[in-house]
Amino acid sequence: MALVDKNISQPSAAMLVIGDEILSGRTQDLNTQFIATRLTEVGINLSEVRVVPDSNSAIVSAVNALRVCHKYLFTSGGIGPTHDDITADAIANAFKVDINVRDDAKRILSTYYSDGEKSLNEARLRMARIPDGASLIDNPISKAPGFFLDNVYVMAGVPSIFRAMVESVIPSLVGGRPLLSVSVRFLRPESEIAKNLEIIAANFPDGSIGSYPFNRDGVHGTNVVVRHSEKARLKSIEDKIKEIV
Amino acid sequence: MALVDKNISQPSAAMLVIGDEILSGRTQDLNTQFIATRLTEVGINLSEVRVVPDSNSAIVSAVNALRVCHKYLFTSGGIGPTHDDITADAIANAFKVDINVRDDAKRILSTYYSDGEKSLNEARLRMARIPDGASLIDNPISKAPGFFLDNVYVMAGVPSIFRAMVESVIPSLVGGRPLLSVSVRFLRPESEIAKNLEIIAANFPDGSIGSYPFNRDGVHGTNVVVRHSEKARLKSIEDKIKEIV
Repeated sequence: MALVDKNISQPSAAMLVIGDEILSGRTQDLNTQFIATRLTEVGINLSEVRVVPDSNSAIVSAVNALRVCHKYLFTSGGIGPTHDDITADAIANAFKVDINVRDDAKRILSTYYSDGEKSLNEARLRMARIPDGASLIDNPISKAPGFFLDNVYVMAGVPSIFRAMVESVIPSLVGGRPLLSVSVRFLRPESEIAKNLEIIAANFPDGSIGSYPFNRDGVHGTNVVVRHSEKARLKSIEDKIKEIV
Repeated sequence: MALVDKNISQPSAAMLVIGDEILSGRTQDLNTQFIATRLTEVGINLSEVRVVPDSNSAIVSAVNALRVCHKYLFTSGGIGPTHDDITADAIANAFKVDINVRDDAKRILSTYYSDGEKSLNEARLRMARIPDGASLIDNPISKAPGFFLDNVYVMAGVPSIFRAMVESVIPSLVGGRPLLSVSVRFLRPESEIAKNLEIIAANFPDGSIGSYPFNRDGVHGTNVVVRHSEKARLKSIEDKIKEIV
């Protein structure tokens, strides 16, 4: 429902959510909105999201489709200790590289358990399996690291851990100029203000104007969201909207 | 984190969420979880989700990629009254058919406004533009209809309207045998029960066993979710899990 789909000079990114539990409806995906918000703040344009099941072929084809079209690809899910947490293997397959338990990952993991390396049973060691050539992503919550390989950032599905990993990664990403936004609230339905919004959008082709209807206690209203990278220009569009809509 | 990715004899479906507001992080998508849950209940396997911006080319390519791979494709978003609610046009483009204001849609829409057809300004009439060959989907909330063309079901993004449209559509879909599920809760971390779960999964290759860690008040626990289409078999797997894990 955005009035304008801007081509802004920001690097593009994709997000790949991996997990049967999202596709069955058991679990609400919260990771997309979190990373979408953070990327917006640092001037990276999240331009596609996909959700696929815990299936090697589905992960491999999505990873290979997305990593060539976007500057960054982020994944969530499937890097835990159970036998079919298969994301790390699928990433290795997508890049056609080997995957093995790696000493640095093992050392990090062992600091999480009171018994150190002795606690690393087979299941836990799965979480130290890292595709060749990848660098580790810090996990301050439960130690088991994520990793990145080329432009693909592989992170956990548990929201608290995903968020911590995103924060570990964000400072290393190169964004464009972030979009600033402002929201104007009307207690009138979209269909009554659409015409004037369209005129404003045509007059400010450099901005992005989105219109989002709501219905609260029977009142049909519209939130108009304006986005622009320059504060002064954003204010001009906002003023014009308040004036003529 | 599912232990087994089953090939169940259910028709597959995809969901396409359309909207800049999801990709910017402004809005949490709630429609995917809703339709995922409903499809699971009627024996249809949601096997892919994509989120794309309000961009004609992005919508056309996603629609054309998904509609050939799945028995059903559902979309949400972009069918409101503002100038760049472009989903209906993009669907017409994807199918290479014309799109025009249609009388039946116009009549339905006019019943929503006290002034009837006189209230149908240009913005509102946008919502009566339907691609050639499409059938309407009932919208009991705000009248403006969705539509389906071939196997593509085009619905509103506003969650209450999306849900109502899904309920309008569900009875006409043909599903397989629904998967039943049961959840077993352990107050032990995934990494301690992974080995035994793997053994059970190998012994019950016809079932699906997913393991989902949680952390509540410092306690690391695991929900194990078993899914099977037969009640008795589901019970056997559940019992085995309670016995040996």
